[in-house]
Amino acid sequence: MAKRIGSDVICLPNAPVVRGAAAVGTSMEAKGPLGAELDHVFRDAKVGAETWEQAESRLQSEAVRLAIRNAGTTHDAVQLLLGGDLLNQCMATSFSARDLHLPLAGLYGACSTMALSLALAALLTECGAVQTAVACTSSHFCAAEKQFRMPLEYGGQRPPTAQWTATASGAAVVCADGRGPRIEAALFGRVEDYGVRDSANMGAAMAPAAASTIATFLRDTNTQPRDYDMILTGDLGSVGSRLLEELLEKEHGVRLGGVHADCGLMLYDGKAQDVHAGGSGCGCSAAVVCGYILRRLREGTLRRVLFVGTGALLSGVSPLQGETVPGVAHAVLLTNGEGQA
Amino acid sequence: MAKRIGSDVICLPNAPVVRGAAAVGTSMEAKGPLGAELDHVFRDAKVGAETWEQAESRLQSEAVRLAIRNAGTTHDAVQLLLGGDLLNQCMATSFSARDLHLPLAGLYGACSTMALSLALAALLTECGAVQTAVACTSSHFCAAEKQFRMPLEYGGQRPPTAQWTATASGAAVVCADGRGPRIEAALFGRVEDYGVRDSANMGAAMAPAAASTIATFLRDTNTQPRDYDMILTGDLGSVGSRLLEELLEKEHGVRLGGVHADCGLMLYDGKAQDVHAGGSGCGCSAAVVCGYILRRLREGTLRRVLFVGTGALLSGVSPLQGETVPGVAHAVLLTNGEGQA
Repeated sequence: MAKRIGSDVICLPNAPVVRGAAAVGTSMEAKGPLGAELDHVFRDAKVGAETWEQAESRLQSEAVRLAIRNAGTTHDAVQLLLGGDLLNQCMATSFSARDLHLPLAGLYGACSTMALSLALAALLTECGAVQTAVACTSSHFCAAEKQFRMPLEYGGQRPPTAQWTATASGAAVVCADGRGPRIEAALFGRVEDYGVRDSANMGAAMAPAAASTIATFLRDTNTQPRDYDMILTGDLGSVGSRLLEELLEKEHGVRLGGVHADCGLMLYDGKAQDVHAGGSGCGCSAAVVCGYILRRLREGTLRRVLFVGTGALLSGVSPLQGETVPGVAHAVLLTNGEGQA
Repeated sequence: MAKRIGSDVICLPNAPVVRGAAAVGTSMEAKGPLGAELDHVFRDAKVGAETWEQAESRLQSEAVRLAIRNAGTTHDAVQLLLGGDLLNQCMATSFSARDLHLPLAGLYGACSTMALSLALAALLTECGAVQTAVACTSSHFCAAEKQFRMPLEYGGQRPPTAQWTATASGAAVVCADGRGPRIEAALFGRVEDYGVRDSANMGAAMAPAAASTIATFLRDTNTQPRDYDMILTGDLGSVGSRLLEELLEKEHGVRLGGVHADCGLMLYDGKAQDVHAGGSGCGCSAAVVCGYILRRLREGTLRRVLFVGTGALLSGVSPLQGETVPGVAHAVLLTNGEGQA
């Protein structure tokens, strides 16, 4: 049974296990500092498909397939797939779920989807609804640019605040028992809106939600940043990360110290790769968490990571209709399971 | 604790309670046979907003507000909002969740979203993750036509298989205890693809998923259609409903008898209103279930309803890329709670 503490945190006394995970990307992601952490690298963004959308779906199917293999379990043992993506009507996930033919709970959390899917997978496992669930998400640079911003052929100049949507996917197999990193708590974020209107500055749009979620998690659990090896945001990038630190200090009296890291600043080499303010997209945090982070937790070189997935809530239409870009951030507490029996 | 039976059904021994619900629509929905079941009717499709997308968001906020009032609870008591919609990037839900400022688990289940959100709300309530959750969804005729098919101004002719996307929303407050209809079981559907390519024939695209979900539910629970007062599909319409009966009989050996009903055939007057094969959209089944059905369960004139939300998985782009339109169907067993302590 799950247990609520404080206003918004949900504790999982049985702490479901991430028995295996996998991250996939393309040569662009392989050139980044975490390239060696990818379970599979596709040569180019087409991934052997005819369209970018179908390519993204293949990324996701492959990540799920490899995660199941890494978990040492079988396709038939998986009782639920929890996933979503950035494409209109979550097409990457829908077609991947068709090909996998697993029961599907479709999600939409924009770039926070990896945290949202891990949270729900853990809760449903904790409560006995499923024994084995797969949490997954993906994104694709070309599909996202075309859909949210400009046709690639237009060759529009990207401002310095822009981020690079990862062409990547991550999947994690969450089980009621077994060996591996554990999910000890979860928090579903509230939508925060500070009135950002620039759809090329997603870091600023998401920072308030990340600040609110982190502050709430620390307050509800009566912990401080130093109680974590890492407080890991999804894809704030360089602009959003600076704003996060400012907001946490000014509005919540929280100093992150050296404990903050951001998947958007980890996936690519900010100097050698032309990604401007950093990586982004559902696949960015998915690849970093399902590759690097969960591996370090398994090895014990990381012990407590508060993963805060961050999502900017916009469509191709909403900014043109004068809407602001609110953000949402969901958190899961990942541990190496040492505190557990 | 939830309990799995058979291959895919999840039983909820504590059977969370739908303590209150609300359905809203516009004058078009009010003219239908269930018009009197709506908790609020907006005069026109603009709902006082400047755009159709913002109008849909208002529909959803109002449905949630009224559901909370009808449940006799308060906004502050709600610990999680579970919802999604058909708009690109689920904008109706995102902006409604911003205005409500409640923790959000964003979902995507196309027109099956009401069943998906009820299933997850019930499971999270069952397991103690939340005491009070709101499940909600919405759709909007004008926003959906523009996004999935043609600009309204084009005045395109709709084929006889086409359905009318409801401009409506429904919300249900799910609690761990209290009085009201109960959710006794849930099933997350698998994506089924029979190769339908006509995006103006969604009933045919969804029927195989509905058939598979109903057959699996009956098999896993060892029940027959006559054990239910109603097996209620989301929005198969007249074409999909006929196909459902055929498929269930031919492929699964199940005869529905007189027990089948379809929200898409209930919301509008097929003779007097020009909706062709029936109503559709997330808001169609949401309004029928959160209005008519839950009221009848509360009164006891219905006692056992298997609600099978149906979703067609397509975007404005996927059929143009040669993709088929697969379907998904999620089920929840709604009862009047008489079998419960």
